[in-house]
Amino acid sequence: MTKAVIAIHGGAGAITRAQLSPEKELLYIKALSEIVEAGQALLEAGGTALDAVTEAVRMLEECPLFNAGIGAVFTHDGTHELDACIMDGNTLEAGAVAGVSHIRNPILAARKVLEHSPHVLLIGKGAENFAEQQGLEPVSPDIFFTQQRWDQLQSARANQQTVLDHDEPINPGTKFGTVGAVALDKHGNLAAATSTGGMTNKMPGRVGDSPIIGAGCYANNANVAVSCTGTGEVFMKTLAAYDIAALMEYGGLSLHQATERVVMEKLPALQGSGGVIAIDSEGNVALPFNSEGMYRGYGYVGDAPSVGIYQSQES
Amino acid sequence: MTKAVIAIHGGAGAITRAQLSPEKELLYIKALSEIVEAGQALLEAGGTALDAVTEAVRMLEECPLFNAGIGAVFTHDGTHELDACIMDGNTLEAGAVAGVSHIRNPILAARKVLEHSPHVLLIGKGAENFAEQQGLEPVSPDIFFTQQRWDQLQSARANQQTVLDHDEPINPGTKFGTVGAVALDKHGNLAAATSTGGMTNKMPGRVGDSPIIGAGCYANNANVAVSCTGTGEVFMKTLAAYDIAALMEYGGLSLHQATERVVMEKLPALQGSGGVIAIDSEGNVALPFNSEGMYRGYGYVGDAPSVGIYQSQES
Repeated sequence: MTKAVIAIHGGAGAITRAQLSPEKELLYIKALSEIVEAGQALLEAGGTALDAVTEAVRMLEECPLFNAGIGAVFTHDGTHELDACIMDGNTLEAGAVAGVSHIRNPILAARKVLEHSPHVLLIGKGAENFAEQQGLEPVSPDIFFTQQRWDQLQSARANQQTVLDHDEPINPGTKFGTVGAVALDKHGNLAAATSTGGMTNKMPGRVGDSPIIGAGCYANNANVAVSCTGTGEVFMKTLAAYDIAALMEYGGLSLHQATERVVMEKLPALQGSGGVIAIDSEGNVALPFNSEGMYRGYGYVGDAPSVGIYQSQES
Repeated sequence: MTKAVIAIHGGAGAITRAQLSPEKELLYIKALSEIVEAGQALLEAGGTALDAVTEAVRMLEECPLFNAGIGAVFTHDGTHELDACIMDGNTLEAGAVAGVSHIRNPILAARKVLEHSPHVLLIGKGAENFAEQQGLEPVSPDIFFTQQRWDQLQSARANQQTVLDHDEPINPGTKFGTVGAVALDKHGNLAAATSTGGMTNKMPGRVGDSPIIGAGCYANNANVAVSCTGTGEVFMKTLAAYDIAALMEYGGLSLHQATERVVMEKLPALQGSGGVIAIDSEGNVALPFNSEGMYRGYGYVGDAPSVGIYQSQES
């Protein structure tokens, strides 16, 4: 029987000890640990990788510390546009929603697309209508509000026009991440899920890598499950998540080699910053990132969870 | 200097001689030939691959015979939701729009995203606002109307509930393709572009592979330019366009081997039907499809265009 394991992330970016108070740091460590533990418990009870990543991402969406669901960042217009994606490595079925504002947990809507529609990606009002038909009660976007994200929008509007200035590269300071989970269950199945509020001050209608299969999320029992966070556009152009699978499948690289190649070489070559979490079919785990920090954690069933925020640190 | 070449497609599907009158067949052959010739002329004059695929897809969108722009299929609600994508193999820059209803030529909006935004994918109203800011005059969706597509919607509504029946696979009979172009210019640059109206009777909000980098469209000077048409969801889950590039880059396959592997093995394994057009960095051309037919054509600069519709036929 496979040694089941789950890994999660809560976004990557310019996260340094200097920026994070000890109190805030403790909140992140506690949240990450609890979510890894919930995933471990689910897998230990024989749950599927698909259920484990769904539940982990739902919890990350519910936690206001992270940029997905409650606590999601604001668009330039002061609205929320949420994206999420999930893929089952066993069947290669996938579901995603993009640009939704009235779904409390976009990952649950993505799961409904995977299970109850012949489609992979639904956007905007059509996605919201489908989610409602599937029993997900519509919510007012007010529930996504947090003071911190609102203040970040005011600051971005006042100081950083780069996201709206089409001649300039995206300012990484306006990025506050994405959440995601990957898991391997006892039955040998891999799954991946990703969810995000996007970029603070983003142009309404902008969709990044999170809801795109092969860019921000990919899973295939034959090789690997991957969830990404970072400069979304570069992850889209490099097909970062699927590229890791292809490097393993066609290039014969190990999980470690493939994730390092993508995160430390291919993404930076196009000015892409961020990281990935990945688990291969043998249960190896890799959590590389090329930014200052990445909120992350993982745990094998039966072990204590391991979580980290900065470089060279697992606590 | 590289031998410049362009290839185009006007969709794949259940296209047989029995279905197509000789008069209609002639219309398709004439349209395909003219569009290949326009691309050849542009490349012969030293134009870039990016300009050639933009112009070829713009012409395909303008032609009511094909399911993109004018002549696009209707959603279940009797509306039009158009998607397009373009990628420059020289810079790996890309632009795409999805779910737009007021842009006459979605490929021109995608090109504007590529050139004048830091983003890759814009959807819905946000994409339309951006296109208008970039000088593309908004249009009434009435301009996309053709009697044939309207009749197809009525027939699909009356007889085929499969697109809306979430327990059934997508009925290939409700698919009427996509358009696309790939080109290699004299300077050695590759580019790819894809545009579609999606599926007749589709659920509003459904987005297929066409506007997704790596699924329906991919270009990289290092290996290949690809544009796809077919069962969109399967092309998304298999990353069909990027998979061809990865098989060549990491697996050492030739253009012919890589396109055959994807179109004849990997797509059918997930019940995916359709085809691709692809040109590699040496100017080799492949136009494989696993369906009854694919509207297609290609032409090297200085040669007569070669066009075809059915299997085993180039005229």
